[in-house]
Amino acid sequence: MISGKTKLIGHLGFPTESFKAPLIYNPYFERDGIDAVVVPMGSRAEDYPDFLKLFFRLSNAHGALVTMPHKVVTTGLVDDLMPTAAIAGACNAVRREGDGRLTGDMFDGEGFVRGVLRKGRQVAGTRALVVGAGGVGSAISASLAKAGVAELGLFDMNGGAAEALGGRLTRYYPALKVSTGSNDPAGFDIVVNATPLGMKPGDPLPLDIERLPASAFVGEVVMAQTITPFLAAAQQRGCQVQVGTDMLFEQIPAYLEFFGLPTTTADDLRSVARLG
Amino acid sequence: MISGKTKLIGHLGFPTESFKAPLIYNPYFERDGIDAVVVPMGSRAEDYPDFLKLFFRLSNAHGALVTMPHKVVTTGLVDDLMPTAAIAGACNAVRREGDGRLTGDMFDGEGFVRGVLRKGRQVAGTRALVVGAGGVGSAISASLAKAGVAELGLFDMNGGAAEALGGRLTRYYPALKVSTGSNDPAGFDIVVNATPLGMKPGDPLPLDIERLPASAFVGEVVMAQTITPFLAAAQQRGCQVQVGTDMLFEQIPAYLEFFGLPTTTADDLRSVARLG
Repeated sequence: MISGKTKLIGHLGFPTESFKAPLIYNPYFERDGIDAVVVPMGSRAEDYPDFLKLFFRLSNAHGALVTMPHKVVTTGLVDDLMPTAAIAGACNAVRREGDGRLTGDMFDGEGFVRGVLRKGRQVAGTRALVVGAGGVGSAISASLAKAGVAELGLFDMNGGAAEALGGRLTRYYPALKVSTGSNDPAGFDIVVNATPLGMKPGDPLPLDIERLPASAFVGEVVMAQTITPFLAAAQQRGCQVQVGTDMLFEQIPAYLEFFGLPTTTADDLRSVARLG
Repeated sequence: MISGKTKLIGHLGFPTESFKAPLIYNPYFERDGIDAVVVPMGSRAEDYPDFLKLFFRLSNAHGALVTMPHKVVTTGLVDDLMPTAAIAGACNAVRREGDGRLTGDMFDGEGFVRGVLRKGRQVAGTRALVVGAGGVGSAISASLAKAGVAELGLFDMNGGAAEALGGRLTRYYPALKVSTGSNDPAGFDIVVNATPLGMKPGDPLPLDIERLPASAFVGEVVMAQTITPFLAAAQQRGCQVQVGTDMLFEQIPAYLEFFGLPTTTADDLRSVARLG
């Protein structure tokens, strides 16, 4: 029940028609009597810098979920940018601190890491390969680094993107061992497809599946189908896998913590969501 | 259930804590499956002109309910101001037209008039006395004029305020007979207290009750108590009366029509509201 005391969380992006967050957060808030609401706000790119600022001047504004096309520009609009967002080069959550300053962070990769941990696997001290150094690959790499991986292999068809991501990672995590230039999964504990390969029928696999160790934990960001051809091939080799939508739900408890709201498990959120 | 397709109606004012509109509109929208939501937005005076503009540039913005302290300044921020709002000198509803222009109107007085009509009384062709020419008195006068009263008596302790209101009324309704300078209710068909008298115990009545005809329909804007001393005195004289909160609920169907949303009766809205 929205009132004048309800904490307002703007969901800022354009267009809004396919927004999922309100269908996940609001049923949870309602069920648990949490006085907060996620409200889609279709801010266009040309208006967004001004709108973000004025939104956070509303007395009942509590936070913002930021989505396409504003994730990158938001990194330059907040007062304090958390390292994960700085490395990812993108920001998908903003909160107002007590002194009015805006803090920005990035949780796409956090969702991936939490999913791995919750499936009983270790992240700290492991070797991880991230194939694809675009937005989501950068976010996952940043969160893997935060979670303490010992070594990160980065690969992108655009070699410069992987090099640049490696540079950003080692600036914040000087002890992290970063290698670039290869998508060979041999010897890695965690292997992630962060490319769009698998969205279209007939896409090649993102790496040489014959080189994938059976002991590897294999993750996927593509959500076009639950078990992508890459995940199916990994399962055939005996690998434990994580599907694309796991990342989506696993990151929500992280947002709730960031916004200082009562939290719950990803599974509970999934059970109460009204995605239809 | 809020989604990215839901029509967003901003409730713009500051502070927001005591806002009632979300508690009235949203339960109705939910019960009837109307895909719209009223969301409080605590915009401060210094931010409001910019915020109003940017709010209406949101792709899912449908309309705005405007309240304190923005009603007066809004008259200068819309592209097209309806006569009732121009006369009232205040605007409490804004909608975006197909071409992007903003239209502003004022429904406080419309709620009063609808309440009179729904109680089986006539407005067109009658003589009405409005005591108090401030914001709410101006709004009621403008709506009475729109509804076709033949004559309006206007009185305010500040004589200039009544004169100025009379001038605005006759600019839009040249055939309307306006008199100012007297709060004598003798000879009037509709008599309204639009002053704050009655909010505090011991307030004098707004007019000489001995001069009030039993045939008059008597209305009140004070909501501190349902039956104010003025209404009680009028009832004792045999007058039919309208309480302050009637105006509140009677105006909501008018807003719904203004916003192009399915409408219902004031009584139905009152029954579904969750004012607690």
